[in-house]
Amino acid sequence: MKYERVIELAKRRGFLWSSSEIYGATAGFWDFGPLGAILKRRVENLWRELYIIGEGFFEIESPTVSVEDAFAASGHLDCFVDLIVECKKCGEMFKADHLVQDVGSESTRAGVAKLIKTHDIRCPECGGELGDVRTFNLMFRTTIGPSSERIGYLRPETAQGIFVDFPRLLRFYRDRLPFGVVQIGKAYRNEISPRQGVIRLREFTLAEAEIFVDPRDKSHPRFDEIADVVLRLYPKKEQLRGKNEIEINVKDAVKKGIIPSQFMGYHLALVQLFLTGVGIRPETLRFRQHKKEERAHYAADCWDAETLLDLGWVELVGIADRTDYDLKAHAKKSGVDMGVFVLYDKPKVIERLRIKPKMDVLGPKFKEEAAKVADVLMRLRPRQLNELGKETIKVGGKTIRVDPKWVECERISEEVHGERVVPHVIEPSYGIDRIVYALLEHSLAEEMVEGEKRLVLRLPPKVAPIQVGVFPLLARDGLVEVAKRVASLLSKDGILMEYDDSGTIGRRYRRHDEIGAPFAITVDHQTLEDNTVTIRERDSMKQIRVSIDGVSDIIRGLLSGKIQFEMLGR
Amino acid sequence: MKYERVIELAKRRGFLWSSSEIYGATAGFWDFGPLGAILKRRVENLWRELYIIGEGFFEIESPTVSVEDAFAASGHLDCFVDLIVECKKCGEMFKADHLVQDVGSESTRAGVAKLIKTHDIRCPECGGELGDVRTFNLMFRTTIGPSSERIGYLRPETAQGIFVDFPRLLRFYRDRLPFGVVQIGKAYRNEISPRQGVIRLREFTLAEAEIFVDPRDKSHPRFDEIADVVLRLYPKKEQLRGKNEIEINVKDAVKKGIIPSQFMGYHLALVQLFLTGVGIRPETLRFRQHKKEERAHYAADCWDAETLLDLGWVELVGIADRTDYDLKAHAKKSGVDMGVFVLYDKPKVIERLRIKPKMDVLGPKFKEEAAKVADVLMRLRPRQLNELGKETIKVGGKTIRVDPKWVECERISEEVHGERVVPHVIEPSYGIDRIVYALLEHSLAEEMVEGEKRLVLRLPPKVAPIQVGVFPLLARDGLVEVAKRVASLLSKDGILMEYDDSGTIGRRYRRHDEIGAPFAITVDHQTLEDNTVTIRERDSMKQIRVSIDGVSDIIRGLLSGKIQFEMLGR
Repeated sequence: MKYERVIELAKRRGFLWSSSEIYGATAGFWDFGPLGAILKRRVENLWRELYIIGEGFFEIESPTVSVEDAFAASGHLDCFVDLIVECKKCGEMFKADHLVQDVGSESTRAGVAKLIKTHDIRCPECGGELGDVRTFNLMFRTTIGPSSERIGYLRPETAQGIFVDFPRLLRFYRDRLPFGVVQIGKAYRNEISPRQGVIRLREFTLAEAEIFVDPRDKSHPRFDEIADVVLRLYPKKEQLRGKNEIEINVKDAVKKGIIPSQFMGYHLALVQLFLTGVGIRPETLRFRQHKKEERAHYAADCWDAETLLDLGWVELVGIADRTDYDLKAHAKKSGVDMGVFVLYDKPKVIERLRIKPKMDVLGPKFKEEAAKVADVLMRLRPRQLNELGKETIKVGGKTIRVDPKWVECERISEEVHGERVVPHVIEPSYGIDRIVYALLEHSLAEEMVEGEKRLVLRLPPKVAPIQVGVFPLLARDGLVEVAKRVASLLSKDGILMEYDDSGTIGRRYRRHDEIGAPFAITVDHQTLEDNTVTIRERDSMKQIRVSIDGVSDIIRGLLSGKIQFEMLGR
Repeated sequence: MKYERVIELAKRRGFLWSSSEIYGATAGFWDFGPLGAILKRRVENLWRELYIIGEGFFEIESPTVSVEDAFAASGHLDCFVDLIVECKKCGEMFKADHLVQDVGSESTRAGVAKLIKTHDIRCPECGGELGDVRTFNLMFRTTIGPSSERIGYLRPETAQGIFVDFPRLLRFYRDRLPFGVVQIGKAYRNEISPRQGVIRLREFTLAEAEIFVDPRDKSHPRFDEIADVVLRLYPKKEQLRGKNEIEINVKDAVKKGIIPSQFMGYHLALVQLFLTGVGIRPETLRFRQHKKEERAHYAADCWDAETLLDLGWVELVGIADRTDYDLKAHAKKSGVDMGVFVLYDKPKVIERLRIKPKMDVLGPKFKEEAAKVADVLMRLRPRQLNELGKETIKVGGKTIRVDPKWVECERISEEVHGERVVPHVIEPSYGIDRIVYALLEHSLAEEMVEGEKRLVLRLPPKVAPIQVGVFPLLARDGLVEVAKRVASLLSKDGILMEYDDSGTIGRRYRRHDEIGAPFAITVDHQTLEDNTVTIRERDSMKQIRVSIDGVSDIIRGLLSGKIQFEMLGR
């Protein structure tokens, strides 16, 4: 399995380690070692560049522990659950729907329980009898403070931290739609028994953008920029009919209704731009639409950006139209208004009836209460105006039947400048850890070089942790001093380099191939004569000589893609 | 109180918000709003620059949820506790030692309980009788997986994630000391009832460096670079004697034994460099040494970098010598070796006794067991050689008294190349959230300008969230188009700018003063004539005119400190 080979290299070279390995590790928890952490940081920073600088979204940071109310409102308390069943004999727990997947496609508790009974399904571990099917909430639960009454949960997504801040955020964005808010941070999912290594984590990093849009208009102002981008789509219709993915540009996909809105289309394209930009191979990428039964409780439409790994198709990003589900849910639970007053392009003129109380009638009749009665009458709704004789009003505790003669009705036209709406939310949600793993798997290559196996991690220069190795050919003859000078030159220019003078030069190249350092600079005897060094490119293993004076600029150019290695030395 | 004024501004402008405010908020949890999150990111990135690029330490990322074993070993399960007491009448919980601090300085459970009884201390809320004093562990507790037997804790510090990875890290650093490993991430402390706003959080961000050093040699290779740095120290002796802080350079402080080692001294200086660099005012900074009873269970020596805030002296960074406490504790609990074989500069020659069994004696006496006996004899330790006649050995279940005639002793000299040590750990641990708050408090100024109150956040340019405002003087006459062109110019160069054309120019300047944007560019009618704009400096409110062509370079120079505003336009 390639997965095992990737993990072997990742562990040996300091990319990924099982957490608390000295205590036997725990499924679902992984550490990013020194090189893995840099790789992850680089991916996160490229993400920030795209969404913060490129799209103009602001980032916020909310806690990972949140109060129960928020998740009661969001639906996670009821819906973020798995069905589990325990073996009565060995006590092992299983995801119940996994056990029945060969005999039926039930997903309800009762349905799954029935399938287990009908088909006499037993414990896959020991053959024992299975207990009752029950629901298990996938949020980690804790208590806040010394009395154990205040329940807190580790957030299952960063999104809710943004939704509960919506009133504050709206003010920050000066009450104008659309606007986007992002968050990168830890999220948690208390998996029953995660068995897919780094792909299924109990603690993971999400990078999420919540984009609040006017529900009446999901066109995107910059749609033209991505209209011609071709996506490999796997719409639910094609899945249900057993057909293949289709390749289509965003414009046509929106026109044909395959992608439901420009906004959704724009963000699918942006996801593809990001993933291929950091190094996910385009030919292994597709967007698969969720079938109805797969969709999260909050989503009206959802597409997964999936990549083909050794383990199969794996979701890297989910792009969902969450509609107004979350904001309405929080408004209802908290009593706080989550609406936005959106202005029309130009005011609309509407006609309506207005009531004018006749004070000359009301005065004598109600005396000192006349003003109060008039006030109540003026606030009658249009519907009530049609049947004035049947209406009653309450004034000062008394119920009074309205006499149509008390008022005059007049038809007026009024300018309306806008209306109150609850925004819809478009959400791309990136699983950063999976992207990092996918990069490793896509990058790892084995090849034979001069009769020896070469392991090389072909990470794109912009995400490679160590950007350049600096090696004296030999650890003597004054080469070390020169190499160290070159090394410090590069460091000062903000390049992450690694100096190494141990072992043979061949061994040092191999090691740097394995950690994916895209370039290596070697100081040799010729350097002492003409002040030149060689730059070796990892992938082609070709070397060219350049002057020390320009080497830092050249390396920076190579890393940013502004200089092509092939163009050097010509 | 200045604290309230800072928080008012921070909330209104999007720096800090109470978390889940719409659900009534929860003490100890705060959000970083759009501007606060950028400020925090900038502080973190400057920290990374110093420790990762500057010191050459690598970062790792371990989960926030950890298994019980790790914290059983680290001592947090037993020692990371507060004493609490509950009011029997109203049910409110209190930190027990806080309640008795006016009548005595007890810190043990029994001692505090006795003080409460003797002095008849009652509930500060309702006057009710207090219950038993008990310990409360400050780690948030959760369970991993569906059976509730696997206990997990939210980490109280990021350090333990580094310590449990020590064997892996040592291999990554190719078995050589000293080396440093850093981690920036969330940590948690389930406070009893946090009452100090953003200063005492239940969830916070730590930036920690764990530096593994040879315990026999705590000199620092780059000590000279910081030897002359003057620190304001408050050693425990001065505190106990009621004296003031002393100002002393690092070299003298180490020489006099006030700071116990060069390594500790180097890192105190580095902390000062960082804090003053991001904008903590030097005159409000001191290093206070922990008195014995304050020290954490793992620390042999600890200094707090404190800053004077409205709330009093507040710890921003703790710098501890954790010795080999943690590594030894994990080695003991896990059974995994945490030692390092350190080479001597040159091999040492040591003399020792070697035992040579006389096979001609042992052979006839022990027959087929002679070889086994000889083997055991050869492994006797030097101490035992001196009293050979009193020693017994065990061979094949039998206990045999050693006869000195069975062996010859010879004195040999041996080359020893090094020895096995367990590293000591020097740890600077930064509370990032507190630093961000302190920056806000130190930066906020109120002044009268032309008869009006001006609120201005004097954040240093390198941490200011919005780096420059771009304003057309009026939203007409073609000024908007030019201003937008300038804005996009700056954006492309990676400057975080904010374009604004709403309201009067004065109002826009005020708003940008409040969010601490150090510069503002204004496009006016003269711009249309001569292609120049004005740059306004936040602090002096002075304006100078520059050409649009150079404006992005100038702004970048001003932000990095390479250009001084006063030097412009001369």
